[in-house]
Amino acid sequence: MNDDSLRPIGGALGAPTLALVVAYDGAGFSGFARQPGQPTIQGELEQALSVVLRRPIEVVCAGRTDAGVHALGQVVSFPCAENDIDAGALRRSLNALVRDGIVVREVKWALPGFSARFDAISREYRYRIVAGRVPPLFLRNVAWSTPRTLDIEAMREGSVHLIGEHDFKSFCLTEAAVGRRTHRRMDEIEIVEEEHLGERCIVVRVVGNAFLRSMVRVVVGTLVEVGAGRQEPGWVAGALAACDRGAAGPTAPAKGLTFWRVEYRDGVWL
Amino acid sequence: MNDDSLRPIGGALGAPTLALVVAYDGAGFSGFARQPGQPTIQGELEQALSVVLRRPIEVVCAGRTDAGVHALGQVVSFPCAENDIDAGALRRSLNALVRDGIVVREVKWALPGFSARFDAISREYRYRIVAGRVPPLFLRNVAWSTPRTLDIEAMREGSVHLIGEHDFKSFCLTEAAVGRRTHRRMDEIEIVEEEHLGERCIVVRVVGNAFLRSMVRVVVGTLVEVGAGRQEPGWVAGALAACDRGAAGPTAPAKGLTFWRVEYRDGVWL
Repeated sequence: MNDDSLRPIGGALGAPTLALVVAYDGAGFSGFARQPGQPTIQGELEQALSVVLRRPIEVVCAGRTDAGVHALGQVVSFPCAENDIDAGALRRSLNALVRDGIVVREVKWALPGFSARFDAISREYRYRIVAGRVPPLFLRNVAWSTPRTLDIEAMREGSVHLIGEHDFKSFCLTEAAVGRRTHRRMDEIEIVEEEHLGERCIVVRVVGNAFLRSMVRVVVGTLVEVGAGRQEPGWVAGALAACDRGAAGPTAPAKGLTFWRVEYRDGVWL
Repeated sequence: MNDDSLRPIGGALGAPTLALVVAYDGAGFSGFARQPGQPTIQGELEQALSVVLRRPIEVVCAGRTDAGVHALGQVVSFPCAENDIDAGALRRSLNALVRDGIVVREVKWALPGFSARFDAISREYRYRIVAGRVPPLFLRNVAWSTPRTLDIEAMREGSVHLIGEHDFKSFCLTEAAVGRRTHRRMDEIEIVEEEHLGERCIVVRVVGNAFLRSMVRVVVGTLVEVGAGRQEPGWVAGALAACDRGAAGPTAPAKGLTFWRVEYRDGVWL
């Protein structure tokens, strides 16, 4: 989902940057990245920004999300010389212009040269699973429903093998790994039970510097193999070491995944 | 939403009763009660039951809900002589037959003569409000969004006047009060802040023996007048005493309301 290069923030001259914190419901969009003739998050945001600012705008994002993946705290940014903009008024205008399913939660100023993508120091994703024979109702569009009961303790044991800096090639969409560096740093994987809207779910929370394409969904698909008892926790270590997509579990469905938040170093916000 | 008469469970002879615990998303349905040519919860459930049991079925429910109101734990029941039914298999068949937006969570047997409506001893509803200038995204279909910030402490003070047995005529849809007894017993009103799917909301939780048509929504609309500072907490006591719908606040939107659970006396389940 992101390149691994981290670029230091220059004391760059030039226009300050405007950043938006954006939530969206992945259903109904062909993913984040602009594609001609398709409803996308980037397309909607750029069009709304261009209307308000009366010039073409191109944004960069903290993490591209695939079709069907949700976001609570996606961050996008673009250089903005118009420094008379009222952030609250811009937020309201954008929310009036974008289609249902996108909400701009915050608009804020950052240093010149700031990039939502390159200056991110960590990213958090959360994946919801409703396990058991009663299908979810209120969570049906934001969780993966599986009829199996899952052994959370076994999933936790399996997840420990993924913590740290590793080559995550086994956990990356095959086409996306070709010719690219596939090392990433996984800081945390936490697996907890939560209740949302009256329904129980299992939440897999992952935090790392950056994630490969489909990586979180393959991590979840792999841990569910362990939770369902089809694999032992130790199998995860072998899947990682193989550096082969075929060694890990299946890709969990997009609708269970939410890009939760992005962290930046102190001092980037004006 | 319900009559106030409680009928003792006879040691009635005859067929045992089958009860379903049902969740539904109120959007897309014209309320619970069957209406010709309209999508309704009762219509969907009765049609699915009739297909599986190969005879016409009519159900009674614990609380009729209006168009747009959700349920997590609605209960419906009907006499059922076919005692070779497997409850789990029936649940799966019904879930395969009803349209998206309805989930049968449980199927269970009750005493002969049991009624989901008349044997209920208490009912709980929850109402969600997202207050503030950032509109909700994941809660947009299950909460009322209001741009005002709300003073929860003032809402709690106002709500205290509604606890106990009262004539709630001021809190009942005018047409529905004509010629009917409008006394009800309100056992609890709790107002708390919760987080669901990453978004903060205020939840108004009400428990009572039974509720008049629109009663919970008028209670919430009235408490929001207090929370927004347009009325003092003590105004709620006057609104109640007036026995006049015009004295209370507006009716809060249907989509924020969920019929949460129904309680029955011990020993009704077989």
